[in-house]
Amino acid sequence: MNPPANPRGLEQVFPILRWAKHYSRDDLGSDVFAGIITAILLIPQGIAYAMLAGLPPQAGLYASILPPMFYAFMGTSRTLSVGPVSVAAIMIASALSAPEIRSFQDPAGSALVLAAETGLILALMSWLRMGLLVNFISHPVLRGFTSGAALLIIFSQSNHILKAGDWNECTLDFHCLPALLQAYQPVTLLIGLLSIAGLLLFAGPLPKLLAHCNLDNSLATAIGRSGALIVVLFGALAVETLDLDQNAAVAIVGAVPSGLPGLGFPLLEPERWRLLLAPAVVIALIAYVESVAIAKVTANLRRQRIDPNQELLALGAANMIASVSGGMPVAGGFSRTMVNFSAGAVTQAASIIAASLLALSVFFFADLLTTIPKASLAAVILVAIIPLIKVRGIAATFRFDRNDGIAELSTFLGVIIFGIEEGLMLGISLTLMSYLWRSSRPHIAVVGQIPGTEHFRNVQRHSVTTWAELLMIRIDENLTFANTSKVEDFIYGKIAKQPRIQHVALVFSSVSHVDATGLESLVQIMESLRINQITLHLTEVKGPVMDKLKQSELVAGLAPGKIYFRNQDAVSDLVSPGPPLG
Amino acid sequence: MNPPANPRGLEQVFPILRWAKHYSRDDLGSDVFAGIITAILLIPQGIAYAMLAGLPPQAGLYASILPPMFYAFMGTSRTLSVGPVSVAAIMIASALSAPEIRSFQDPAGSALVLAAETGLILALMSWLRMGLLVNFISHPVLRGFTSGAALLIIFSQSNHILKAGDWNECTLDFHCLPALLQAYQPVTLLIGLLSIAGLLLFAGPLPKLLAHCNLDNSLATAIGRSGALIVVLFGALAVETLDLDQNAAVAIVGAVPSGLPGLGFPLLEPERWRLLLAPAVVIALIAYVESVAIAKVTANLRRQRIDPNQELLALGAANMIASVSGGMPVAGGFSRTMVNFSAGAVTQAASIIAASLLALSVFFFADLLTTIPKASLAAVILVAIIPLIKVRGIAATFRFDRNDGIAELSTFLGVIIFGIEEGLMLGISLTLMSYLWRSSRPHIAVVGQIPGTEHFRNVQRHSVTTWAELLMIRIDENLTFANTSKVEDFIYGKIAKQPRIQHVALVFSSVSHVDATGLESLVQIMESLRINQITLHLTEVKGPVMDKLKQSELVAGLAPGKIYFRNQDAVSDLVSPGPPLG
Repeated sequence: MNPPANPRGLEQVFPILRWAKHYSRDDLGSDVFAGIITAILLIPQGIAYAMLAGLPPQAGLYASILPPMFYAFMGTSRTLSVGPVSVAAIMIASALSAPEIRSFQDPAGSALVLAAETGLILALMSWLRMGLLVNFISHPVLRGFTSGAALLIIFSQSNHILKAGDWNECTLDFHCLPALLQAYQPVTLLIGLLSIAGLLLFAGPLPKLLAHCNLDNSLATAIGRSGALIVVLFGALAVETLDLDQNAAVAIVGAVPSGLPGLGFPLLEPERWRLLLAPAVVIALIAYVESVAIAKVTANLRRQRIDPNQELLALGAANMIASVSGGMPVAGGFSRTMVNFSAGAVTQAASIIAASLLALSVFFFADLLTTIPKASLAAVILVAIIPLIKVRGIAATFRFDRNDGIAELSTFLGVIIFGIEEGLMLGISLTLMSYLWRSSRPHIAVVGQIPGTEHFRNVQRHSVTTWAELLMIRIDENLTFANTSKVEDFIYGKIAKQPRIQHVALVFSSVSHVDATGLESLVQIMESLRINQITLHLTEVKGPVMDKLKQSELVAGLAPGKIYFRNQDAVSDLVSPGPPLG
Repeated sequence: MNPPANPRGLEQVFPILRWAKHYSRDDLGSDVFAGIITAILLIPQGIAYAMLAGLPPQAGLYASILPPMFYAFMGTSRTLSVGPVSVAAIMIASALSAPEIRSFQDPAGSALVLAAETGLILALMSWLRMGLLVNFISHPVLRGFTSGAALLIIFSQSNHILKAGDWNECTLDFHCLPALLQAYQPVTLLIGLLSIAGLLLFAGPLPKLLAHCNLDNSLATAIGRSGALIVVLFGALAVETLDLDQNAAVAIVGAVPSGLPGLGFPLLEPERWRLLLAPAVVIALIAYVESVAIAKVTANLRRQRIDPNQELLALGAANMIASVSGGMPVAGGFSRTMVNFSAGAVTQAASIIAASLLALSVFFFADLLTTIPKASLAAVILVAIIPLIKVRGIAATFRFDRNDGIAELSTFLGVIIFGIEEGLMLGISLTLMSYLWRSSRPHIAVVGQIPGTEHFRNVQRHSVTTWAELLMIRIDENLTFANTSKVEDFIYGKIAKQPRIQHVALVFSSVSHVDATGLESLVQIMESLRINQITLHLTEVKGPVMDKLKQSELVAGLAPGKIYFRNQDAVSDLVSPGPPLG
């Protein structure tokens, strides 16, 4: 919709070409540093979000290699970090936990189908140029959704910290909470709590301490960002040396196949594709909305532009490549992107470097990852996810706009009570209904003239001159099927109270669209007024509206009514000289 | 939403009290005459629309007695004629033809359930004050729907003119057309064609002839309106005297139980109620939308007011009484209301008189109705329905608004191809989608000052003064979740092209609502601009918007940005003196 000035051909499809030709040595320096920092975060996050989705660790790692590289070529954001993200991961977990999908006994294969469908849906939306239409997810709904999903994530991960043993059936179900709490396993709990303490240390006190020591700035940043990697590797070392997986039944990640992903197409099973289509639509929507929101935040800070339809295409390509390279659905991650941006990433070269480093570590150090305790990964997720819960904001939203507040609260509760997709759909439906409801009750005002000026204002808010023979009515919204009824009621109601009236002038300064229903309503108002010996006029009609009305029967039938350029012209022409009414 | 001035208690629920106390002898004279004319039309229409719905004749007659009387007490229209209507009748036929409903082998009982559900839904909508929300049916969709339904009616009735025998299975199915055409029955066809000719004679040439003969005006009106009754009675007489039902297998109405309807509650069968709920919702919507549209047309001609929510209640009551008095779903009929109005009806007393006359004739002359040929009734329906087909209007709608034209054509074709309800739903969905789509692409313009005036206009349409350090952007729509993305893109796009810019002033003259997403977007724009050393200002903020923004973080954080009352103030304050840019 808003591509940067004159992109053509290849540059349109591969925005990387826009910056690659001006790429400098300075840029490379910045990007290499940011890439290292991002890779340090990407490795534990990749494994952790795979676990959150109910998938083997390599699904998250593989999704962190080729997808960000494809995005780097096709995305319009210079700093978005694409890969596994927490909210998409919990949505994948929810989709995979449906009984019909479990019956395939192949969660990794189902994740590939999900990624393929997510990619195809995103590409289709790009082709249909739906980049703007998907905005029907309002901020409050998105916030309520994210808070609800984060709460579900916390619950689903808390069992990794409390309980030993392998994956259990308790994900996304609050009823097994008591059983969980009774079966807690002391060593696992200790690992989990120590991991959380370590992460909090790296997040707050440590960077402050380093700042005191006059440490080199880049090094301080690198140390500050490496908390997750250090905690996870420390956990792996502890399990390894004390044989905790054997001696204390601590759950670990297990064997990660060393080497790189092979390319292969996910199984062609129509039934599985059909069953996963609905969750894929929701994952695609959320992946897109979250990614573009994050991309815009960083782009605005550097006066860069994001093209919504190209983003749809780039994210679609990233998900399709995720599906053929053994990964899981991907999106732009908020925390990773902010880390990448603040570490100084200038272009997507940083993402390519991060992905390459991750690929190297999977290739050479896969063994190191085997004994990572799941409790440490759960701690990484918990610490990352808690800031996403913004329940207090609901009250502020409610104060500003009651309907938005209701939508935010309903989405939050809907996600927790009815499920991830159901909650989101509830929020979207409520927003659309309240939008239509509001549109059907437009703001309409009788206006008068501020004495001595050419300004016209609402008679109820300003002390203005009005006239017995002329009624000026300003319609503060586009005239469409949604509100013509209300407009008609308002006009007829005002006329009934003003017996000496001869002219009605509709002020169109706020009307920038009139649909067929609006036009017919205007014609009917004109005719009803005429029967009552009142003439209809229009003033301050905007260019595009005037162009449309000129083709219609309204303008032809308006005489003796006129269309005035300015309100002042209407008053001069229609009001007989004499003392004003008040 | 817009009740007349200070209605209280009983007057609110029974608007009849508003006119009954001022009722004069003159009013009575007018209403008696209009009542007689309307009754003459009501008798054949009642029987014909029952036949169209696939119901025995008394269903239509009974629906013409108590429902209009109840409406007379509760409705806010003084001239609306409530009873069986053609479009509702074809919808009833469609609902009753579903295999699950046919299996009950009791169409009359199902019609009572439909009427009960329609009444309850209307009352519920009134209670929820949805009088304005139901406007999501746009005029083009309503017109496409009516044209499509009229075409289905013509087809369903043509078999009564062509073929002898009883009800057949061919209603609403074009595939049996060839079979129908081959099996035509000459005497029935002759009766049908003669009936059509008679009706056309009464509709056009006869009133003109009578006008020539200087006949008393009231008598001329009465004769002109009695075409349907005379044609139908003439047909009955022909069948009676020539025994055509025996000798030529001409289908006749059959025995109409003499006497008045008993009051009784329709059968309590949960399954039947469940199956008929969806069609009842659609009938309720259409009954309401059509009735209010007609009521408004006549009310506007006499400066009277219609209260949408009270109409919902009155129509709901009329349908509920229809269901307990042996009738069928009712609504306000277009042709009958116009006849009633132009015959001089002053109040709903005319409807009460018409209903009483109909009740008397059912009580005393039921035998006369027995031998009415169905072909004559079909002719009455055909002549009434043909003017409702307005296919040529689709091209005009398309020219004025492409999306509205597509919606009208899709609804029309949808009704014919997929069915009545499906077509309507298709049209509504298309309208809502195009509404959201349009809302997401608001009109935004850079404005400048018309030299020597205080007027500000779009730089692309007028020759205006602009400034290097100040960018004035007018947002021509409410700022909501649907369009913030586009607004942000527009602003950042313009800034990128104007390097010396220091101030951005958003002109809010057309903004009458800002939702939570819009507010957050404004805050984000403000902060992004600040990082780029640009200050955000607002001008011409409307009262209600200002009230809301004052509570928000936006106004608190705006400084050094300001909120100006007029555009002129912003220019005086922000533009340094010197030669303007051009």
